[in-house]
Amino acid sequence: MRKGEVYLVGAGPGDPGLITVRGLELLRQADTVIYDSLANPALLKEAAPSAEMLDVGKRGGLHKAEQDEINQMLLDKASQGRSVVRLKGGDPFLFGRGGEEAEFLRRNGVMVHVVPGVSASLAVPALAGIPVTHRTASSSVTIVTGHEGAHKDAEWLDWAALARSGGTLVIMMGMSNIGRNMRRLMDGGVEPDAPVAVVQDGSSK
Amino acid sequence: MRKGEVYLVGAGPGDPGLITVRGLELLRQADTVIYDSLANPALLKEAAPSAEMLDVGKRGGLHKAEQDEINQMLLDKASQGRSVVRLKGGDPFLFGRGGEEAEFLRRNGVMVHVVPGVSASLAVPALAGIPVTHRTASSSVTIVTGHEGAHKDAEWLDWAALARSGGTLVIMMGMSNIGRNMRRLMDGGVEPDAPVAVVQDGSSK
Repeated sequence: MRKGEVYLVGAGPGDPGLITVRGLELLRQADTVIYDSLANPALLKEAAPSAEMLDVGKRGGLHKAEQDEINQMLLDKASQGRSVVRLKGGDPFLFGRGGEEAEFLRRNGVMVHVVPGVSASLAVPALAGIPVTHRTASSSVTIVTGHEGAHKDAEWLDWAALARSGGTLVIMMGMSNIGRNMRRLMDGGVEPDAPVAVVQDGSSK
Repeated sequence: MRKGEVYLVGAGPGDPGLITVRGLELLRQADTVIYDSLANPALLKEAAPSAEMLDVGKRGGLHKAEQDEINQMLLDKASQGRSVVRLKGGDPFLFGRGGEEAEFLRRNGVMVHVVPGVSASLAVPALAGIPVTHRTASSSVTIVTGHEGAHKDAEWLDWAALARSGGTLVIMMGMSNIGRNMRRLMDGGVEPDAPVAVVQDGSSK
């Protein structure tokens, strides 16, 4: 692990056994750990006793200004010559703003290493006994966010097109707009009796 | 780890550091390890010296009969009272036949545990610096197989609909039919100059 560099580490879907071997090694060595509230407290105990632990709050409710502060914090800590783990729930690059953090740091001359994590989008269905693809049932899986639009001006998701995709649809952060989104899917042609699973705190408890 | 039970373990996208902590623990303890050729040889060395190691060949070229043999082998080893790790490249439940193996074993009275892995579908783009979703670029990702139809009678994928999805499209096992599939996407409306990345052996070498 190198001083003055940032390691974007996926914490996995909640269960501390589902972080990667490399992710755990880095977490144990880091001078500074910057984590959000999706990271399991059991994982945070793995950090060195001397490590600086910085909680940057809940991802779901994050505003633009707060993201800028996180970016700046990552840059500051790396610039001070510290080895930094940015621990993110799930996969840092799937609805995780990992892409934005990496871009910002690289633009400012900081080396960024990516350690992918197990994504809740695929792992939670698997743990619930639901294969997202199956030779006799589904040839594709589409992963979307259920609360698009909360942090941007326009919506890009075409729910009518999603309804026609024919494959498995995984809606992340799906609880807050579940009524609206289910109505949109049915308006797009999904049968009201189509099989659905709702999973919350999938591997966390 | 329990005798007479099967642990479906995702090996991750190739790099041995990207297996999960729980997956590695189970691999080290198993009486029998049944793996395909997508598993990294460095990972196989982690098994106990006394472990029975069974190579069941390359996933991409697997035929129905061979899958039946694998199912039977898993059942036989568990029935003999051995603890069995079924090590699968990537995520066992995403185009990995994990769903079929778990169904078969449960139908035959064998307890199956699922340990999800880091999926190459999301990790390999991340390692290549490509976030599959980004607040200013894409709100969804669809994961499909590029050689659907090799093992079944009909095709379900609607490439014209995929072309219109507007989000990121990840094509797994995409090399063998790349010409045909790119033509279908362009026929569906994807611009010939749409950005594309082709990644092979993403985290394996």
